[in-house]
Amino acid sequence: MKNYVVGVDLGGTKISCALSDLEGRVVAQTTIPTLAHEGDNPVLGRIIKTIEMVLEEGNVATNEVAAIGIGSPGPLDAKKGIIVTTPNLPFKNFQLVQPIEEKFSIPTYLDNDANVAAIAEFMFGAGKGTENMVYITVSTGVGGGAILNGKIYRGSTTNALEVGHTTVFPGGPRCGCGNLGCLEATSSGTAIGRRANEAVNSKVETSLRDYEAVTSYEVFKEAEKGDAVSKKILDEAFNYLGIGVANIIASFDPDKVIIGGGVSKGGDVLFNKVQEVVNERCFKSMAEYCKIVPAGLGTDAGVLGAVALAIMESK
Amino acid sequence: MKNYVVGVDLGGTKISCALSDLEGRVVAQTTIPTLAHEGDNPVLGRIIKTIEMVLEEGNVATNEVAAIGIGSPGPLDAKKGIIVTTPNLPFKNFQLVQPIEEKFSIPTYLDNDANVAAIAEFMFGAGKGTENMVYITVSTGVGGGAILNGKIYRGSTTNALEVGHTTVFPGGPRCGCGNLGCLEATSSGTAIGRRANEAVNSKVETSLRDYEAVTSYEVFKEAEKGDAVSKKILDEAFNYLGIGVANIIASFDPDKVIIGGGVSKGGDVLFNKVQEVVNERCFKSMAEYCKIVPAGLGTDAGVLGAVALAIMESK
Repeated sequence: MKNYVVGVDLGGTKISCALSDLEGRVVAQTTIPTLAHEGDNPVLGRIIKTIEMVLEEGNVATNEVAAIGIGSPGPLDAKKGIIVTTPNLPFKNFQLVQPIEEKFSIPTYLDNDANVAAIAEFMFGAGKGTENMVYITVSTGVGGGAILNGKIYRGSTTNALEVGHTTVFPGGPRCGCGNLGCLEATSSGTAIGRRANEAVNSKVETSLRDYEAVTSYEVFKEAEKGDAVSKKILDEAFNYLGIGVANIIASFDPDKVIIGGGVSKGGDVLFNKVQEVVNERCFKSMAEYCKIVPAGLGTDAGVLGAVALAIMESK
Repeated sequence: MKNYVVGVDLGGTKISCALSDLEGRVVAQTTIPTLAHEGDNPVLGRIIKTIEMVLEEGNVATNEVAAIGIGSPGPLDAKKGIIVTTPNLPFKNFQLVQPIEEKFSIPTYLDNDANVAAIAEFMFGAGKGTENMVYITVSTGVGGGAILNGKIYRGSTTNALEVGHTTVFPGGPRCGCGNLGCLEATSSGTAIGRRANEAVNSKVETSLRDYEAVTSYEVFKEAEKGDAVSKKILDEAFNYLGIGVANIIASFDPDKVIIGGGVSKGGDVLFNKVQEVVNERCFKSMAEYCKIVPAGLGTDAGVLGAVALAIMESK
């Protein structure tokens, strides 16, 4: 009986691997450093090693494992099992799935961080019980993943839900992707930090100037203390996030929009503004129906997501 | 053997009904006036009558018909088979599907105009052979429908793909829905006509003033003749349409975006601008992969769409 799956969360600094049953209960887990500088094949070897470690720790044979799921930063090609390129990992058009599948004779699936997080929220987190949900992560960047009719929706080139690169402010700030006014350029942690530094270097009065270095973290802190400039920066960022969410609701008509990532830890100041904008901009019936909620999973979301990917794909 | 389907295109002025085989070849067709002023039950009766007419004309018994599809203006509830309300028809929260299903003992499906047009393009038109496609109609209003993984995607409240009410210009013109800067408010035929009338009533020099009444039709005509104001109005409208399409590509990552509706008849002036904006705003790989093309079906798209809905749902 294939009663287990393995999930691998591949990151620039560490590789986390979990052995789980088909309900997502982790029975063995390990984390080792990625050592990305050693190059592609050594990192592949370390991934394989973590899988061997959890199988041994859990005392589970390879023929008891239904699937292996791997979550990785993108861009990647989920259909082909290839990591195209990613800033903090040594892979360039690297076939990651095939050698792992061959090594263990276990069906292996690769997907990007945002998609595996979406699957994790759907199976184990804030998206449980939904049929259609969109997950958005607002962090250094802005990404997304969607579960439609109970399945992950990847699109034709497996790049669906690039919500961070939808335009929410046509004449707005330049995004890293080259476009003007992407959601990522208006509302990511990076964008909030950039606006804060612009304020510090201008003549406006702001307590942000009391810090040696300013990131979105200090903006949240000073906004809470009452700094008008910090409050305005967040209000603008979350206005555009609200527009992005309203567009998602009008397009996907989901049961829930789930917002995770570091910036979402800001809590009410973010969720209240997003809800206000959605109420203004969406059809009333859709705004009322769709719940906008924080992610339900914490720091384990990465490896749990990889486990969830394996469970979903093995069904 | 159930080798036939029936499609009904319900409009404010006429009801078109077709009997077709399972490949969409129409074997009998009829069109009668809606006579909407007579009220809900008389119009229901006329729909039933058209179905009886095509069955008789095609010499087909009800037990040879796999499904009946009905396309109607919305908003409606496709799951429940209810027309919620629609400007030119007498239905208010009217259960349309059940009495037809009971009358003929044939499974009956209702969907909105844009969705049935999307299904028609997918089965018989410009979307043939795609796996994921989004259809946009740019006409008096702007609507849309999506085929994802080969099936119509309706969303949780069957209102997905309200692309006309995604925000493409946050501080832009007021839309009929109450929001500012909806795609429908910047790029519909109505929006183009409104901008033209604003120009006529201003002091700018424009050949649009030669007409007694100006609609989007005259704007296209004068733009082609070289009127700078008309060209600018279209350029702006299609810039925002391009932003809407770019956001759809980033969100759905489809094989194709298909643009239909009266305004799309403008041809190159629309498609060239939309493609230019998509190239600017989307990831290069996605912009190159996704084809933006005109709808492949003409005036029969409505009733063919209803036929296509019946075929898709009976599979």
